[in-house]
Amino acid sequence: MNKIAIGQAGGPTAVINATLAGFIESVKDKFEVTFVEDGYEGLVEEKFRSGDSSMLNWVLDNQDLPGACLRSGRYPFNEEAIEKSVQNLNKHNIDTLVFIGGNGTMEALYKVKQEAERQGVELKVLGMPKTVDNDLGATDHAPGFASAAKYIAQTTKDMSRDLYSMKNFEQVRVLETMGRNAGWLAAASGAFKEYDEEGPHFIAIPEKPIDKKLMINSVQEALVSYGYALIVVSEGVQWKKGEQAKLEQVNGRSILGGISNEIGEFVKQELNVTTRAELLGMNQRSSSSCKSQVDANEAYQVGYTGGQWLQQDYDGYMVSIERKPSVCYTMELKPVKLEDVIAEEERLMPPAFIESHQAYYQWLTPLLGGDSPSYPPVKQRRVELSEY
Amino acid sequence: MNKIAIGQAGGPTAVINATLAGFIESVKDKFEVTFVEDGYEGLVEEKFRSGDSSMLNWVLDNQDLPGACLRSGRYPFNEEAIEKSVQNLNKHNIDTLVFIGGNGTMEALYKVKQEAERQGVELKVLGMPKTVDNDLGATDHAPGFASAAKYIAQTTKDMSRDLYSMKNFEQVRVLETMGRNAGWLAAASGAFKEYDEEGPHFIAIPEKPIDKKLMINSVQEALVSYGYALIVVSEGVQWKKGEQAKLEQVNGRSILGGISNEIGEFVKQELNVTTRAELLGMNQRSSSSCKSQVDANEAYQVGYTGGQWLQQDYDGYMVSIERKPSVCYTMELKPVKLEDVIAEEERLMPPAFIESHQAYYQWLTPLLGGDSPSYPPVKQRRVELSEY
Repeated sequence: MNKIAIGQAGGPTAVINATLAGFIESVKDKFEVTFVEDGYEGLVEEKFRSGDSSMLNWVLDNQDLPGACLRSGRYPFNEEAIEKSVQNLNKHNIDTLVFIGGNGTMEALYKVKQEAERQGVELKVLGMPKTVDNDLGATDHAPGFASAAKYIAQTTKDMSRDLYSMKNFEQVRVLETMGRNAGWLAAASGAFKEYDEEGPHFIAIPEKPIDKKLMINSVQEALVSYGYALIVVSEGVQWKKGEQAKLEQVNGRSILGGISNEIGEFVKQELNVTTRAELLGMNQRSSSSCKSQVDANEAYQVGYTGGQWLQQDYDGYMVSIERKPSVCYTMELKPVKLEDVIAEEERLMPPAFIESHQAYYQWLTPLLGGDSPSYPPVKQRRVELSEY
Repeated sequence: MNKIAIGQAGGPTAVINATLAGFIESVKDKFEVTFVEDGYEGLVEEKFRSGDSSMLNWVLDNQDLPGACLRSGRYPFNEEAIEKSVQNLNKHNIDTLVFIGGNGTMEALYKVKQEAERQGVELKVLGMPKTVDNDLGATDHAPGFASAAKYIAQTTKDMSRDLYSMKNFEQVRVLETMGRNAGWLAAASGAFKEYDEEGPHFIAIPEKPIDKKLMINSVQEALVSYGYALIVVSEGVQWKKGEQAKLEQVNGRSILGGISNEIGEFVKQELNVTTRAELLGMNQRSSSSCKSQVDANEAYQVGYTGGQWLQQDYDGYMVSIERKPSVCYTMELKPVKLEDVIAEEERLMPPAFIESHQAYYQWLTPLLGGDSPSYPPVKQRRVELSEY
């Protein structure tokens, strides 16, 4: 019987445990399972935990929870670490390695596989996608993204109502979303926008530097028409190409966050209005209140199907989501070679979606689940109303 | 027929429009209604909008939305402004003034009433409570608070899962909640805590300065036991009595926010761990995703009952929520004189709740609604499991 090790890596999502549970449900009666804790660190430090029935049930029971049951974390997965990992897997008689993660994870799996070959160790690898940023290639989208997008779309909608209420006190608010290099999340902020007055009134994404003139014009137009303006920006957006606002280094990783302050300051100087910058925090990736049920279902299916593929001897693949051409949204899971995932590098928003947010929202909406947004359509006030 | 003016004031909440709708439903066939826009500013600047059927329906249709339909905002309501307000109300033949708001609003209504008497203008006033901070006196709690508390409790629970996942990357997170002088919201962060490991591991509220030693001990204990620690603090918490961390002045109002950074920095220095501070933003008062249905229902009832009392000639009162002694949570609405509300000043957490958060959570839980928290109980891993 094969012995599988499975782990989770990187920033967790609202549905990462659904993938884990789907996988376990699929393989628990067929394979011996070992859990790897703390992501790659667990591979290097032998944080292996036997998948006995108690542990398997624990994973299945907690599939609705945000965060990563096995812990995911970050770890410098260099050559030495990879070499050690393969030795450890071999030592524990593990012949199949499965990880739930993003770009870094797919590359890590590929490298582990190569290293295993170099060491003459037989090892199958399988990747299962996960990212809130949606910057993973070779898949229509990745589990975790839709729930994060829904959180941002709903927050923007609620925040727009909040700013409308307070416009005699503050006029411009700048929301900063996750997204180091890709604008999928920031652009999702407008997915629940129903009418012109509602924010966002300007969105800036990392795919192109901020057009200051366009931004100021958009803000000014909103200020003239509605008395307030809501700006949404990705953390990785740049004033000029190559000039990201870097705030600090945490454990050797540059933590973005702060461009919203810079933009708020800039708008304040230019237009002499009161501005407030707000970083949307870790709720973007961990909020259970805005979880998309479509996202959760897909996450589970990705795991379950991955488990089935192992029974069919797939090796070196990622489980990819392919959208079917259809009136209603349907998808199919397809195996994609890890090399092909890696070759696509970070997946940015395509020009068609950057040029037309409406096209993007048409693509995005089915992923957000049927209960979106969280309240019935906003009734606009009839326009013919005389002013006081 | 009486002519009523109604307005909303201050920071909006997730349920402030339910109170407005309840009130309108109650009075729409009995009184002539005028809407005051932009809070007190509307009284001074005559931002009166006729309550014709279209406008009444618009308010009723939008009762589920966060933010304030009539806009609330902030405005310096000084003597001159109050004098002008009474003149304007008189000019528009308005004989009843109703406002939905917090401490400031109850005081404003009282002053307007006094000024009307001085000017010899007949004017009835009625206040309807609203605050996320729950610092309004003479009521068990105020509509808006429970939804904000639920947002914070759920966010803390989700964030605790997130931090658990990432503990090999960052060990301490400091969440900062609203609450300038009262700790109701920060203390609510633990309402969904199910077991020891789950955060928050330390809560600091404005009612007493931070006990540095206790905080460091609590964090260290959590670090030793679980490898991570989650701290929750009110924005108004103080290192020493009288020393609030003031970040900036916005339109003459000092905006708090920043103590979480100071605490994060302090813990980092003391314990040499990676810390991250996060300000929970305007979602605290405007998130529709965490709205408590109990809160929304009560908000509506407060408005509806207020309208009924006007038909019974009540004058100079606030609609107060009185909790009934009962096994199940029930409440009753009682009129409280505005003087009595004002005399209570800002309502802080009572010592019994500060000393025993469990007592506080017993009081709080029924207000959060039956769908809390947003996922089934976390299954803990059995403790007898051997380590690797």
